[in-house]
Amino acid sequence: MTDSDLALALRLADLAGAAIRPLFRGQWNHERKADRSFVTEADRAAEAAMRRLIEAEFPRDGIIGEEYGTRNEGAGRQWVIDPIDGTTSFIAGRPIFGTLIALLQDGWPVLGIIDQPIAGERWVGRIGEPTLFNGKPATARPLKELTDAVLATTSPHLFTNEEADAFMSVAKQVAEKKIIYGGDCYNYGLVASGHIDVVIEAGLKLYDYAALVPVVEGAGGMMADWQGNPLDAGSDGTVIALGDPARLEDVLEAMG
Amino acid sequence: MTDSDLALALRLADLAGAAIRPLFRGQWNHERKADRSFVTEADRAAEAAMRRLIEAEFPRDGIIGEEYGTRNEGAGRQWVIDPIDGTTSFIAGRPIFGTLIALLQDGWPVLGIIDQPIAGERWVGRIGEPTLFNGKPATARPLKELTDAVLATTSPHLFTNEEADAFMSVAKQVAEKKIIYGGDCYNYGLVASGHIDVVIEAGLKLYDYAALVPVVEGAGGMMADWQGNPLDAGSDGTVIALGDPARLEDVLEAMG
Repeated sequence: MTDSDLALALRLADLAGAAIRPLFRGQWNHERKADRSFVTEADRAAEAAMRRLIEAEFPRDGIIGEEYGTRNEGAGRQWVIDPIDGTTSFIAGRPIFGTLIALLQDGWPVLGIIDQPIAGERWVGRIGEPTLFNGKPATARPLKELTDAVLATTSPHLFTNEEADAFMSVAKQVAEKKIIYGGDCYNYGLVASGHIDVVIEAGLKLYDYAALVPVVEGAGGMMADWQGNPLDAGSDGTVIALGDPARLEDVLEAMG
Repeated sequence: MTDSDLALALRLADLAGAAIRPLFRGQWNHERKADRSFVTEADRAAEAAMRRLIEAEFPRDGIIGEEYGTRNEGAGRQWVIDPIDGTTSFIAGRPIFGTLIALLQDGWPVLGIIDQPIAGERWVGRIGEPTLFNGKPATARPLKELTDAVLATTSPHLFTNEEADAFMSVAKQVAEKKIIYGGDCYNYGLVASGHIDVVIEAGLKLYDYAALVPVVEGAGGMMADWQGNPLDAGSDGTVIALGDPARLEDVLEAMG
């Protein structure tokens, strides 16, 4: 991963934001011509713009995207892009969805961006470097006791029954007023910035979690699957994010 | 309700924002001296500032606030203020909490403000007038079928088991990808702006819901309790907000 990779990633985030902003809270809300078609439109426009740039700059790199599938499968370097993570937030007019951009090297995320194009908030993580939030270092915070945690997950409907039980086992250890729902990728940015302590989710795709790893870990936090293993391209979609890696055992134990 | 009432309400929102902004995502996150004390601090500072102004301008009016209780109980005009609705969002660093300001006349909300001081977003509702979002008219949207709704609620933990069943009966009629959690008062602003169709909540206090009524209804929407009755100072804290009042019967029927 080089400075030109970072430069490209930043340009990708800019491109996605330019494609998405005009469609946020747009007139489609009142027209409702075709259900969810507007979010597909924003997603596709942003992904197509990003793919064109990657193909022009690094034609041998792989690309994995939600809308247009995989290019150069098996390449050592793979760009993983999700133009709108948090489509429900986007639909509902909440400025806490995000564009996710990751670079994988041999399946491991080495660069990640979470970009919120409406609020103008951007987290940039690179392996071995401190995470930056709008250009300034972001720091996850220590957590002495799991009972003190601010705990986030996007929706109870994204869990199977068994997964919901595991989440609730952790939630029961936390003050009810410190459990927060909704948020998607934005929650992980807030872990990196020291405002949320724990995120527990399941059913995530590679394009949902790849970019989050360098952001959270470069801020001093940790990401793992529900067995405590590091996340790579082959992970099962269960995800734990921790501001304080020292609490991993407590979370895994609580999940049973 | 006069123009000077509106002018005062706007000044109250400005005062609250000025008190709250410096404490959002503040250093307390890393110090954690006393659990939740920072949000209490922001809440109290904002409420105290607002009460001082009301007492100076309209000393005979009543005031009902979350932090400092009731003044001039039984007054015909009552200001109902909640400096930070959505304390969990505030704690977690999400810019979708809000300051709520309402004026009740004989127990009925006649003026309401939802103010988001970080994003700089403000909904202003007055009985008989169109709701304004940042100075421009806000319009709730029509909804032909409940199955097409974007449905919001803040947290499943805010319901009793029976209430959760009623909510889930509606949720089952809606596409899973269009159910959104989190959001507090911000959801009701998004109903007024035509991005969310239905909000269903319970356990709300007067200071949680009073300001929402003029905002939603001035945009063409409707607010009611779970029996379909209009909301006043004596309501039981169950709340339905609808962008399209024509869907009230469908929602009540689905709730059983």
